This record gives sequence, C-alpha cells and structure tokens, in this order.
Amino acid sequence: MKNQIETQNEKPMNEISLDYVGITNFKTLLVITRDGKTFHLTPVIEATINLPAEMKGIHMSRICESIVEIINDERNAHHSVEELSLQVLKKIKEKHPFSHAHLSLNFDFFYETKTPVTKKKTFEVTNVTVETWVKDGSEDQIAISIEYIGNTVCPHAMENNPEKRTHVQRALGKLTAKGTLDQMPSFESMASVLKKSFPAETFAILKTTDEQFVIDRMHENPMFVEDVCRNILARSKESFSDKKLDLAAIVKSFESIHKHDVIAKGSTTTYNKN
Amino acid sequence: MKNQIETQNEKPMNEISLDYVGITNFKTLLVITRDGKTFHLTPVIEATINLPAEMKGIHMSRICESIVEIINDERNAHHSVEELSLQVLKKIKEKHPFSHAHLSLNFDFFYETKTPVTKKKTFEVTNVTVETWVKDGSEDQIAISIEYIGNTVCPHAMENNPEKRTHVQRALGKLTAKGTLDQMPSFESMASVLKKSFPAETFAILKTTDEQFVIDRMHENPMFVEDVCRNILARSKESFSDKKLDLAAIVKSFESIHKHDVIAKGSTTTYNKN
Amino acid sequence: MKNQIETQNEKPMNEISLDYVGITNFKTLLVITRDGKTFHLTPVIEATINLPAEMKGIHMSRICESIVEIINDERNAHHSVEELSLQVLKKIKEKHPFSHAHLSLNFDFFYETKTPVTKKKTFEVTNVTVETWVKDGSEDQIAISIEYIGNTVCPHAMENNPEKRTHVQRALGKLTAKGTLDQMPSFESMASVLKKSFPAETFAILKTTDEQFVIDRMHENPMFVEDVCRNILARSKESFSDKKLDLAAIVKSFESIHKHDVIAKGSTTTYNKN
Amino acid sequence: MKNQIETQNEKPMNEISLDYVGITNFKTLLVITRDGKTFHLTPVIEATINLPAEMKGIHMSRICESIVEIINDERNAHHSVEELSLQVLKKIKEKHPFSHAHLSLNFDFFYETKTPVTKKKTFEVTNVTVETWVKDGSEDQIAISIEYIGNTVCPHAMENNPEKRTHVQRALGKLTAKGTLDQMPSFESMASVLKKSFPAETFAILKTTDEQFVIDRMHENPMFVEDVCRNILARSKESFSDKKLDLAAIVKSFESIHKHDVIAKGSTTTYNKN
Repeated sequence: MKNQIETQNEKPMNEISLDYVGITNFKTLLVITRDGKTFHLTPVIEATINLPAEMKGIHMSRICESIVEIINDERNAHHSVEELSLQVLKKIKEKHPFSHAHLSLNFDFFYETKTPVTKKKTFEVTNVTVETWVKDGSEDQIAISIEYIGNTVCPHAMENNPEKRTHVQRALGKLTAKGTLDQMPSFESMASVLKKSFPAETFAILKTTDEQFVIDRMHENPMFVEDVCRNILARSKESFSDKKLDLAAIVKSFESIHKHDVIAKGSTTTYNKN
Repeated sequence: MKNQIETQNEKPMNEISLDYVGITNFKTLLVITRDGKTFHLTPVIEATINLPAEMKGIHMSRICESIVEIINDERNAHHSVEELSLQVLKKIKEKHPFSHAHLSLNFDFFYETKTPVTKKKTFEVTNVTVETWVKDGSEDQIAISIEYIGNTVCPHAMENNPEKRTHVQRALGKLTAKGTLDQMPSFESMASVLKKSFPAETFAILKTTDEQFVIDRMHENPMFVEDVCRNILARSKESFSDKKLDLAAIVKSFESIHKHDVIAKGSTTTYNKN
Repeated sequence: MKNQIETQNEKPMNEISLDYVGITNFKTLLVITRDGKTFHLTPVIEATINLPAEMKGIHMSRICESIVEIINDERNAHHSVEELSLQVLKKIKEKHPFSHAHLSLNFDFFYETKTPVTKKKTFEVTNVTVETWVKDGSEDQIAISIEYIGNTVCPHAMENNPEKRTHVQRALGKLTAKGTLDQMPSFESMASVLKKSFPAETFAILKTTDEQFVIDRMHENPMFVEDVCRNILARSKESFSDKKLDLAAIVKSFESIHKHDVIAKGSTTTYNKN
Repeated sequence: MKNQIETQNEKPMNEISLDYVGITNFKTLLVITRDGKTFHLTPVIEATINLPAEMKGIHMSRICESIVEIINDERNAHHSVEELSLQVLKKIKEKHPFSHAHLSLNFDFFYETKTPVTKKKTFEVTNVTVETWVKDGSEDQIAISIEYIGNTVCPHAMENNPEKRTHVQRALGKLTAKGTLDQMPSFESMASVLKKSFPAETFAILKTTDEQFVIDRMHENPMFVEDVCRNILARSKESFSDKKLDLAAIVKSFESIHKHDVIAKGSTTTYNKN
C-alpha cells in the first residue's frame, strides 16, 4: 500500500455537485453532563457533507473518525447534544473540507416524574432528534424535535352522546424548534409543552386512583388532533416567547374506531399569517 | 461456463445439518379465484428446506424458480393460498430434494362491508399469514394467522368511575389456526371471529350516527386484553368445532394512558387443561 | 340524533390555521388499466387538507368517503394513479371546502422481466409513491418517487487491491420527479433509469450463468453511492429532457464492511448550479 | 375511591386460563456494573405472567412497579442483566401471585475494539435479548440472544468465475444460548463467537489499509449463509463446551444481486442428531 490511490479525488463521470453525502444509521454511545446530572444516550447518527462537482467521492472514514474522536472522548465533558454537534462538525471540517454539512442524532431521552395521585416515582421516555446545519458564511442552524406519546379524546362524539361517551386513543405529538445555539430550549421544557398540550399526561405506572385522575382529565379536556396540534404551537410560542424560533408541530392519533390514523400538521409560519 | 462447479454439493467444513435454509422477504404477485371472486394479493414469502450435514449449501435459485413457476403461471387458476402453498412445495421437491420444508406467505387481505347505521360501503383490511410445513412421512400441516385492528375499553376504570368514564385504545388481535388442509377455516370466518371478539368493530368510514353506534357498543362491552384474548379462543373453538384445530390468540393494546402496550397470549392447549 | 352537533364548525381555543389535517396509514385496493394491462395495487394513503383558523376541526369521514367513492368505484376505469389522485382531491373539494390539499399513495409496483442470460421470466418489485398537491390559484403539482434495490461496488477498494478485490453490498436508490400532470414520466421509465444507474441490475431469479453475468457487470462498473446518485440525476435529466421536471435522487448503501450505511443525496437544483 | 372495585378478581365470561399476560414495549434505563466497568442500557421490556381461568385480569400496575423498584433503584448495584431479571420476577411474585412468568429485555450493547491495521479505537454495536422463564417446581431458564452485523461472500460465484469475482453483502447473524443462570456465557464471548464465524469482522471506522485487510479476509474465507450458520453452531459448541446449553443460530443475508434475502437456521438439537 505504498502508493495508495485516492479514488475519491478523481474526476467523476458526471460532474454534478451533491448536497449531502456521508454516513447514516451509525450507532454509538454518548455522555452528557448538565446541571450536575449525567445522561447516557445511545444516538443513531447521520452525518453528511456536500460534494463538489469535480470530486468523485468523499472520504467516509474521516466522518466516522470525527464522530468517535469527539463523542467517545471521555476526557471531553459534553454539556449539551447541541454543543457537541457543533464540535463534531468542526472536527469533520478539520479532516475534510466542505462548504455545508448536516448532522442528526436521534435517541430516547428519559426523565423522572411522579404519578399524579399516589406520587410513585416513574421514568418516562421521549424520543429526541437534534439536527445541526453549518454552512460557510451563514450562522449555524439547530433544530430539536421531541416526540411525546399522549392521547386524543373525541369532542365531537362526546357532544353528540347523551351519556358523554366518546372514543379515546393513543396519539403521538412532535414539536420541532429551529433556531441558533443560544435560542435552543431544553429537552425538558419542550417535553413539558408537549405533555400539557394533550387531554392528559401518560405514565409508566398508574395505580387505580392515578388512573382515575388521568381518565377524568381526559374527559374534562376532550381534544381532536387539531386541538392538540394548535395547543403545542400556542404553548411553545408562549413558553419560548423571548426566542425567535421556527416552531412546527405534528400530531398523529391511532384511532380506536378506525384501522387508519388521523394527522394534523402546523407551523408558526402559518400561525403568523393569521 | 462449460464445466460449472456445483459448490453447493461439496462437503462443508462443519458437517452439521440445518433445519431451514432458503429465501425470505421475497415479494411477488398472486391471484386467487374463489366462489366467483378474484383476489389480487402481493405476498411477502419465506421458503426454506432442510440441508443435510454432508451438503455445503442449497440451490437457492431453484426455490425462486418454483415460486415463479407456480404462483405466476396465469394458466394455472389458484383457488386458495393453502392449496397453492402445497403446489409450490411440491414443485420445489421436484427441483430440489428435501426431507422437510416450510413456506410462509404474508399479505394484506381486504373485504367489503357496510357501516353499521348509514350502511355505507367500506373496504376493511386484515393481515394474513399462511404457513405450510411438509415432512417426509408426516401429514402436511397448515397454519393461518389473521390480524385484526380492534380496541379495548378498560372495565376496571369504568367500574371505579362514578360517571362510567374509562380509557379506550386501539388494540391488535391475532388468531392462529393450525391443522391439515381440509380443516382450514376461511380467512373471512377467522376475521369474523376476531371482529366479534372486540368491544366493537372498526371501520374505514364512520358518519356521526355510525360513530355513536360504535362508541355505544364499546361502552356496553368493556374488555381488558385478557377478555378479548379469551373471546377469540372461545369463539373460534365454537365456530370451528367440527374441526380439530390448534388455536392460539394474541391481543396487544396500545394503551392511551401509558407509553407502553399490554399483551395477553393464550392457546387451546391451555384452554383444554381447564 | 335529530340535532346533531357539528363540533368541527365551532371556534377553536387557539385560532391558528393548520397546514395539513386528515387521515394517514389508510389502506385500500386500487385497479389501474393502462395500455391494455391491468394493475392491482394496495396503496397506503395519506390525504390532508388545510384547516382555517376559525374552524375547530375537519370532517374526517368526508375524506374517507371521497377515497372510497373514487378509488373503489368499479364502474370508473382509472388509467393512472396520478389522474385518479386529482379525481380524489376534486371529490374531497366537493364534500369539504379547502384552499389547499395533499394526497399521497405508496404501493409496491411489479414488472415482468427476463434474466440476463438464461432468459427466465421473473417479476421484479419497486416501491412507488405518488404525491399530489392542489392549491387554489396554482397549477396542480405531482411528484412520483420510485425506489429500486440495487448495489454498490467500491471503486476505491478495487483500485488499491492488487487482485482487484473489493466490497460489494445491497443499495437502495430513489428517484423523485416533480412537475405537472402532463410532464409525469411513467413508473416503468423511472424504474428503467434507476436500474441502469447501478453497477448491475438485481433479479428475483439468477441461474449460475445469469449470476456470473451480473457479477461481471458489477466489477466492470464499480461505483460509490455518489456515482449511483449522479447517474440517476444525469440519466433522468437526459431521459426526461423534454419535460421541465424537478428531479431528486437519494442512494443508501448497506455496507458489507460496516454496521452503518452510507448515503448520497442530490437534486437538479444543485446540478443546474454547476 | 373508598370502596375500590377489583374488577381483575371477578369471574371472567370465558373461564380459560391464559399463558402470558402483562406489559410489552416498556422502555426504561438500566445500569450494570461488572468487572469494574459500568454499562448504561436502555432496554425495551416485555414482562408477562400466567392468568388462572377464574380471574378476569392481572393487576398490570404491579408489573410496572416491580420493574421500576428493581431496575431503577440506584442503591441496588446490578452485576448482570440475567441476575437482575430474576430479581424483577421475584419482586413481581411478591406483589402478584403466578405459577409461571416470562421476562424479556432487548437492548443495544456496545464494546470497544481496534481497527485491524491502523489500530484506531472504535465502538461496535450488537443487539442483545435476555429472556427469563420462571415456573413453580422448575429450575429458572435463561436465554441470551446476540445479533451481529457481518457479511457473506458467495463461494459458488467465486469458484465459477475465472477472475475469482463474486458477490458480497451485509448479513445478520444471531446466536441464542439457553440454559440456567450459572451456565450463561457473557455477551462479549457470544459476540466473539459471532464475529469469528463470518468471512470478516465489520468495523465503525476503516482506513484504507484496514479496509484492504477486511476485503482480503472476506475473499480468503468465502461463505454462504449456511457456512456462517454452521460456524456459529460449531464455534459456540466448542467455546461453551463445559456448559450444557441449547444453542440456536440464524443467519440472514441481504443479497446484493437480488431484492430478497436468504436465510439459514439451525440448532444443536439438529447438530446432535448427526
């Protein structure tokens, strides 16, 4: 291997520049230390950079090396996934020139809470995606998306039913906030917006009195997916009002009376139009 | 390619016989004509045969050829997936010796129905798996599994609530019937057992009066996953009582008050024990 | 139910307009007759419309009814999924006012072909998504995406290896063409672009001589994901040159030497920049 | 809620005993300390117990409580997932009578290694499932399953090709070892059996010289899925020869020349027959 050939640097057959080239479905370990707490995460990562028209390929191994060198360096304490994302992209740039790049990390995030009546300790899960875009001459952009498993309670069926019976079902809500590093809300504050936007919170443990509390909340706050979607947008706009964030929400409801799902999508771009 | 080498027939390094070797995740088209109706299915297929200890490998292409020759032969009218399965395995045996083999086809199956009050036409989907095992010296065995999307309505929460409020959610029920070719019930009769075993049927379309009908059925028949699972076992045993089938049921409920699911599994083997 | 309450028409708590509200993961049957051939498809459908700020919800059942009335009407011969999509959206508009709407159908599409040397008949599968956007005052937009399972063959490893050994793996290519109804290429022509853009075609059946043909093609045309992605863009631009389509390509390679995947994404917007 | 009704204890409509009733898809955090190393895992859990014919339902919340009390107790150091599993089942038994029960934990497990030539540090992932069955009057049974992403290299194509060209692809191997607590091999020793059973190991990072090393190993050790499956069985039998374990292996190959996969399944039960 004395004269290693750098095929990647050759001219490609079709001189077309590509937007995003890199690795995906890359799994690793990640430790974040914040406010005295330590979070052990196992993200699934996509890391891509642009490829100029005159280069045949990118050097994939340099992307993987950059991730391992930054993420798996135990001497290097990371205080947020967002900061760490920018460090990874900086390291990639040191090893491999690019004019723009994108990094995405998806992982489950757990938080401790208490059941509403019996006050039992539980751990609840949300799914988090942190995306980062860097581009020469532009400010770095970050998007955090949080998914929360909640529920919907049909107000239309309830209003039309003499006994106030209705159909209830699991629903999945997702809030995405996009902005710059200093504008980013915490995962916990975004999860908090989500859980308050549904008819009732969901819990890993519910004793009978807790269950009754949750069921009563549900029936006192019947909501369509449209209602939950608007709640997420309105609450996040209010909660993060000092920040100029792009906010988007998607709510999907796994209908108990149908085999299909229902969905509602909105964003503050639309919101502001009204 | 005059002297083609049959590597598959060589001695393997480790002379260990293998139970099932073949292809999986194979997609094709399938037409069934039965009782004057034509069903176009797009099954995902797994087809495997045993491999004796002294052979290095099986001839994979002969498995694929057998499937294409039987399934995609337009001159050959198929009247049931079960009969066709036995034909495929017979064709494989002609092309490739084996002492036992297994074939599995998984597909969505649609049936026409009407909504309960407004009598609107809808098409409803169930997922079907047909498995066939053939073995030298044994009778051929067939298993049909049908999955139906229904719901559960918590009777415990309802009984404890002064206003009879409860939590409701989507649930998935699966019935498996195993026996010989002449014992096999139709997909429709198995789907019928499933849909009657839930608190209420689910529909692709529900106008307000239909929706009220479904919601009232739900609340009049509150059921745990355990209740639905036992209903499936009891109803299928009764419906197919003239047949000596092995019956198994699994019900999973996508809880609206939790982020996790609940599950109940049973079979007539257990049932008979009582 | 004399005085049915239309909860959907009430004022919502948060007067925010939503972009897309409707149903998703809706499965049904679809028959297309084109050029004397009949295609039976089982699409998974998402159908959404905008929701004005002053309305609490959309009337979901009208969306489902529109799909069933158009798609499942046997008297109504459909000649393309694209035309049918526009008919569905027109029917929704008759039943439910909107200012913009989106429809998506995803399904497996099969085509007959022959193996390269032994000329055996096989059926090959591609996954197709047809999306349609209609908006008051704008021309209808359609996007067709075709996914094809091919392969990559690392040219860098091959060039550096004295015996021209390299690593090979399955890869998934996706071509999306977006334009107006009259500009849309056929599924077959898009699938053709895809299969010619990989080192070699893939087949459901390959006898030994066919397999050797495919392997030789692979090694004579080693390609990175970047090469395949550019081939798709260049070939589709050339093949559909009389049409002013937006073209985008994604190629993902399931690396045989890594546990992660590699990915390349590009579009003609970028292409034109060069 | 003074007189809470225990609906679960009522007589069911159908007095059929059920095999397994409980929770599934339950996500939580888990810390294992072993040999001075700490492992942070995020398992997906299924926990089920039998339901006697005369009881309407199980008390689901007691299952969840038992998991949280054992797994999330920070004062309680856990030294293996297997030991912890038995503790969880013991805790469930304290809270809820049963005659048999099953617990399953599925999680990604990471281990540090070095690339073969340049000796770069990488973290590699395997997927682990630990299952435990307890039954009155029987010894506790444990099964550990490890999944490893490797590759296959077709020896048939290579032997028939004058230039020794062949097709290569990603493959997934799974080894399951079932026995009693004292017989269980470590995850690392099982992963080691798996990675040595493939043509070559896979790595998160490979510099050009590492890549050449891996490619040469692949081509020097061409293997069918059948070969890999037999290697796993033979190597695990040899590695864990002092233990009387039931061993089973499944290998699936994501063919680069086909759109479908190929599969081989075997077990020591079959092995011993030869």
